[in-house]
Amino acid sequence: MPTETTSQQPKKILVVSAHPEPRSLNAALTTFAVEHLRAAGHEVRVSDLYAMKWKAEVNADDFPDHQADRRLDVLAAQGEATSAGRLTPDVAAEQEKVRWSDAVILQFPLWWFSMPAILKGWVDRVFTNGFAYGPDVPPPYSEGALAGRRALLSVTIGARESSFSDRGIHGRLADVLHPVQHGLFWFAGMAPLDPFAVYRSIDLSRERFAIAKQEYGRRLDGLFTDEPVPFRTLVGGDYDHDMRLLPGVEAPGTSGLDLHVHPRA
Amino acid sequence: MPTETTSQQPKKILVVSAHPEPRSLNAALTTFAVEHLRAAGHEVRVSDLYAMKWKAEVNADDFPDHQADRRLDVLAAQGEATSAGRLTPDVAAEQEKVRWSDAVILQFPLWWFSMPAILKGWVDRVFTNGFAYGPDVPPPYSEGALAGRRALLSVTIGARESSFSDRGIHGRLADVLHPVQHGLFWFAGMAPLDPFAVYRSIDLSRERFAIAKQEYGRRLDGLFTDEPVPFRTLVGGDYDHDMRLLPGVEAPGTSGLDLHVHPRA
Repeated sequence: MPTETTSQQPKKILVVSAHPEPRSLNAALTTFAVEHLRAAGHEVRVSDLYAMKWKAEVNADDFPDHQADRRLDVLAAQGEATSAGRLTPDVAAEQEKVRWSDAVILQFPLWWFSMPAILKGWVDRVFTNGFAYGPDVPPPYSEGALAGRRALLSVTIGARESSFSDRGIHGRLADVLHPVQHGLFWFAGMAPLDPFAVYRSIDLSRERFAIAKQEYGRRLDGLFTDEPVPFRTLVGGDYDHDMRLLPGVEAPGTSGLDLHVHPRA
Repeated sequence: MPTETTSQQPKKILVVSAHPEPRSLNAALTTFAVEHLRAAGHEVRVSDLYAMKWKAEVNADDFPDHQADRRLDVLAAQGEATSAGRLTPDVAAEQEKVRWSDAVILQFPLWWFSMPAILKGWVDRVFTNGFAYGPDVPPPYSEGALAGRRALLSVTIGARESSFSDRGIHGRLADVLHPVQHGLFWFAGMAPLDPFAVYRSIDLSRERFAIAKQEYGRRLDGLFTDEPVPFRTLVGGDYDHDMRLLPGVEAPGTSGLDLHVHPRA
């Protein structure tokens, strides 16, 4: 639902953008979001991963204290480097931006039904043990290390919307993006909104681009007021000690990934 | 179901492995798979992405014929480079391995509920327009450009199995891996088997590693004989022209991603 931008308090928003071409639709949507949010009084920072030449792969170079002759345990190395403040400057800078933010927007083309590798590498390297989860931060799924923040995926998709609809062959977009919406954002305590998608994104006409911007503008206006996806909380009593949904919690006939979402009105 | 390896015809198998540490569990499982499959008479090739220093991100450098002042349209550039035989040597070499193979195994740690960035980058760069899909190859979902090949995901997972079970909070492993199983393999015409997973993979004891190898060995023995996931085919009459499942095709009460799988006996 559109909301009055004038009624919003100024907030801090991080936009992470992942497309190699500065004249791409993705770049245009990033620019649009930045201008739209700033016009509404918000503070915006952008991580343009290709422009930053973001290093995608996790490896030993991420851990300055790691001894070359030792076996690299990624989870342990991330945890130690995070707690010791010994992450590489690129990772530390991105963590600072996420911590600073009230909302994170990821802008990317859907490649092979998920994020481009460079963006997956931003997630793999920035959302470290000790930062986004771990024994010393609040538990995952609703509390979470990064609680209090909203999250929005803005994706461009070559295929038609029908193919990602309820009965669409690719699977519902919400299910295809479940690893990010639920597995990344919700796990880390962030509240994800429904994704914003531009379908049939190849050679988008000027007219359809104008419509897409209008729709995206409404979603940006609702960034802090729209209802997030009502995922169930781990700490709310719906799950057992083995992290399985308790019997009978769900509405009759619910199955699969829908089990983990409260029914919507 | 275990099968007699001696009854199998020799086949060609590509193992793609994605872990930065040569002494990791993932590396050990790759070594095990290679030895086990070779002992059964198969030909095996390995793409060890970290050892190869695989370039993860798609960018203009992937397209030698791309003019720097032109807008980079990734889909078009991939299509042109593929049909002209003008892909970079690293990508061309991987495509040759996939073409050569009767089965592809991806070995990786589940990071943020999907592939490590370096492996996603192998997918993004190797499964090009014109190679894995496109107007000049057989249509996706069952026919597909890479039909006749099997596919197996072998993943290590820090969490317990219960948390990925039918009612597990992370979602069923099959649903979490749907973007790869259905979106990548099945889309491209490859027949994916159920994933093989080692849960609670952190500090795996010698005893549990031995059990994991036994289980993995059985799965490798069944690589060409086990029943693949019975995904529905796009061309089999189950979908309409907008790629939506026709009404009433599914068993009553089926929803979500299960819509796209034939019920199993």
